[in-house]
Amino acid sequence: MNRQLIQFDLPYVVFLGDITDDAYAKTGLGLVQWRRDGCSGQVRLAGCSVDAGVPDLDVEQAVRLGVRSLIVGSAAVGGGMPAGWVATLCDAAAAGVDIVAGLHVRLASLPGLADAAARGGARLIDVRVPPPGLPVGTGRKRMGRRLLTVGTDCACGKKYTALALNQEMRRRGLPSDFRATGQTGIMIAGRGIPLDAVVADFITGAAELLSPDNDADHWDMVEGQGAIFHPGYLQVTVGLLVGSQPDAFVVCHDPLRTHIASWPDFLLPTIAQVIERTVQVGRLTNPAIRCVGIALNTSKVPAAERPALLARYAGEFGLPCVDPIQNGVGPIVDRMLQEFTA
Amino acid sequence: MNRQLIQFDLPYVVFLGDITDDAYAKTGLGLVQWRRDGCSGQVRLAGCSVDAGVPDLDVEQAVRLGVRSLIVGSAAVGGGMPAGWVATLCDAAAAGVDIVAGLHVRLASLPGLADAAARGGARLIDVRVPPPGLPVGTGRKRMGRRLLTVGTDCACGKKYTALALNQEMRRRGLPSDFRATGQTGIMIAGRGIPLDAVVADFITGAAELLSPDNDADHWDMVEGQGAIFHPGYLQVTVGLLVGSQPDAFVVCHDPLRTHIASWPDFLLPTIAQVIERTVQVGRLTNPAIRCVGIALNTSKVPAAERPALLARYAGEFGLPCVDPIQNGVGPIVDRMLQEFTA
Repeated sequence: MNRQLIQFDLPYVVFLGDITDDAYAKTGLGLVQWRRDGCSGQVRLAGCSVDAGVPDLDVEQAVRLGVRSLIVGSAAVGGGMPAGWVATLCDAAAAGVDIVAGLHVRLASLPGLADAAARGGARLIDVRVPPPGLPVGTGRKRMGRRLLTVGTDCACGKKYTALALNQEMRRRGLPSDFRATGQTGIMIAGRGIPLDAVVADFITGAAELLSPDNDADHWDMVEGQGAIFHPGYLQVTVGLLVGSQPDAFVVCHDPLRTHIASWPDFLLPTIAQVIERTVQVGRLTNPAIRCVGIALNTSKVPAAERPALLARYAGEFGLPCVDPIQNGVGPIVDRMLQEFTA
Repeated sequence: MNRQLIQFDLPYVVFLGDITDDAYAKTGLGLVQWRRDGCSGQVRLAGCSVDAGVPDLDVEQAVRLGVRSLIVGSAAVGGGMPAGWVATLCDAAAAGVDIVAGLHVRLASLPGLADAAARGGARLIDVRVPPPGLPVGTGRKRMGRRLLTVGTDCACGKKYTALALNQEMRRRGLPSDFRATGQTGIMIAGRGIPLDAVVADFITGAAELLSPDNDADHWDMVEGQGAIFHPGYLQVTVGLLVGSQPDAFVVCHDPLRTHIASWPDFLLPTIAQVIERTVQVGRLTNPAIRCVGIALNTSKVPAAERPALLARYAGEFGLPCVDPIQNGVGPIVDRMLQEFTA
């Protein structure tokens, strides 16, 4: 185990509290979707009407089943954590179950939870908090292959695409790992580094730790962050790019967006601009870096128009273009393997 | 006063401890060189043979003179802080003098110092620690002009050049401020943000705070950090560049360096590459960004060869090329004003 990654043990239960709206359980529902194999069930309190479709368990049952981690998968309306939720977390921690959450407050600051964890020998894992002792990036070439998802903006499918690529590789029996750089990704993967919370000097070094040396034919599918033309966050993107030293990248794009979301004075860059700049910057640590596909988010495009839209982008760039949710990412994996298999 | 900048009050005394080697007093000696006007004197302990050339004072005398800040300008051999030094800091803090330092440990962790500061109503200011509550960068255009020093590598004159540009502007009676992004710069300027210690998401926002709206003809001379082709630190450089939205930049360069210092696998980029990439990235928040000069560090070049070397670079790039220490930066200020005066 690398102590410089956040890491937690399986199996887990997802804790949903007493919420009644799926929108507040995005983390928990995504977690169960992508990490069904390690999931023993859900812990729901009286009144909860959201259902992740896994067995209902109380803390005692979870402990009997050998559950190692309880992951907080809901946000309470209003942001704080209700006393009833905290009481359940305390019960689990006192029984030796690690508590995992991406809250704005530290888990240890919740009333009674640090004591309960000490009694039970449980860990409190805040996935927003980077591990201490991160190194500075070295730029040293590592063994194995890496793919990074990048985007024309934030929130346009980078995490989903990396997860889908990893799933497709494993479906084909090929060696691959998803490398998480944000809190939801870390919960899904069970390990990772929340890159946006790392101190500036150590972003490249954190990215290097995240995708270490591996077998020559092994692929790391690295979850991208920010966007390389983003006026607030490009530094995270650039550090992740240079530290990951990817062989390949995929551009994620929302075809209906015209401006950077929440930055209305900034036009969305074109896919061509993102490809060009990503290659320019990425060459510093991987001179052979290249784009192997485009992932479009077509959720707001009428279904009848989607095939023509995908075909148009594919033709324009000479690259496979898919909507990962609608079509899967098979053509991108095909292209990636074709480009990088001797 | 902007609470999101580190900021301390003048006049100050520089504390040199009991060291006997100038190399351990680089911070203190540089401070007195650049900030002689706010300096009331030096506090030296028995046995100290380093001399900053300002009046010797003890803490009692400093207090009588109205000194507001004591700045730790020496590093003890071995790294820790000797008990005799701490005792002097405690005396000053108990008398109401703010203590300013860039130590690896927090000032508040030194024995007795937090108590002394509480008794005296003094602040303990760690210049390595960024202020809380930094925002995300907005990319919004600000009034006033900005110049950023960049480099082909770290440690090649970015701080010195920005200080020299600011000094030359003020000598001419023109409105200018030095904007500090590192701990020594912050001590010299009396304010700033240690950019390398800021959390990744907030680098652009910190850079925006550092050079706020100003008069149309006012220049901020922003101290650069890292280097845009540096495999460990480029993310800091890129965030500072986009957040500073500079109109002009100066490239600092050591003509005898062939590789990135301490990264022997990375060739030093050329000045032309640094200009091109800085313009490409900087355009995001300032489409008119341009290079206005080159600052060479010729300290290791034989004196007889320097003029020809400077002339060669000046000719190659069509830009003023100076060694700020040997020649001053007058020609760069001339060019900058010529380019940006209507």
